[in-house]
Amino acid sequence: MQSVIHLVSGDGSEQQTALAIARNLLDDESGTIDDVAVVAQAGGIEAITAGGNEEEQVRSLIDDGVPFKACSNTLDVMDLDESDLIDGIETVPEGAVEVTRLQNEGYAYMRP
Amino acid sequence: MQSVIHLVSGDGSEQQTALAIARNLLDDESGTIDDVAVVAQAGGIEAITAGGNEEEQVRSLIDDGVPFKACSNTLDVMDLDESDLIDGIETVPEGAVEVTRLQNEGYAYMRP
Amino acid sequence: MQSVIHLVSGDGSEQQTALAIARNLLDDESGTIDDVAVVAQAGGIEAITAGGNEEEQVRSLIDDGVPFKACSNTLDVMDLDESDLIDGIETVPEGAVEVTRLQNEGYAYMRP
Repeated sequence: MQSVIHLVSGDGSEQQTALAIARNLLDDESGTIDDVAVVAQAGGIEAITAGGNEEEQVRSLIDDGVPFKACSNTLDVMDLDESDLIDGIETVPEGAVEVTRLQNEGYAYMRP
Repeated sequence: MQSVIHLVSGDGSEQQTALAIARNLLDDESGTIDDVAVVAQAGGIEAITAGGNEEEQVRSLIDDGVPFKACSNTLDVMDLDESDLIDGIETVPEGAVEVTRLQNEGYAYMRP
Repeated sequence: MQSVIHLVSGDGSEQQTALAIARNLLDDESGTIDDVAVVAQAGGIEAITAGGNEEEQVRSLIDDGVPFKACSNTLDVMDLDESDLIDGIETVPEGAVEVTRLQNEGYAYMRP
């Protein structure tokens, strides 16, 4: 099974829950979770900027194979570019399109 | 592909994100998004009442073909009726049933 | 059709909306909703602890056949065990895995 987490909230506590859930899915002992992806947009971008509180946690997830996809539309609006993000984060033109695409591929959706 | 946005939050910032995402999906240049729908219920109804801050944005989405569906259960609880909503908004008996129905039809779900 | 509600927020108002939506789906008069399940994790666990404000509402949903599934990972982190929860609540090893499993079985997802 596959899961996509929508990191869309600007609330620090919700961002923390999103990252903790990504970790729990990755470490799941049932052996039923094959892929976990994170799509960040809107306020959720804050959680994946370099130098932020969540950097270590995000890096560890990326190192363990979780793709993080940042919405380029949001980066433009926030006047950020890819170099402001934690290393290893990909960009997609629009986060919501990526979330739609992944659900169409069979990913389950979660918005913590 | 098809996407349904659940406008369920009473938080103004989350409502703004929901409407911005509807717009981004509609304007998406990948050509992969065929339909975008918005289902409003609970606190999300505030964003679609006539005279609210989001009226222009909602009108523009409706004019561009995005169906907005308001939960009649919520309207009853809030003592509102269809005439209190922005012109062009449809009602459904229960928003959550509509969200379920659309997902069953293949719509991807998003709750910004 | 089947619906799963992700009770993941620590916000009291969002928890209330989640429980109200579960009730509305259960009482739906369209006759199209066959099953409603609630998966609680992270801040959402507060809404299903014994003695909380929502106890009566949760008990009534359980009595009417809605399965409530609490995330054991969250219980461990919060230093709670099953006896701290409202009677009749089941536990699952990880809430996000259960949410993924249910979506894979065809449940529509909602995060109020």
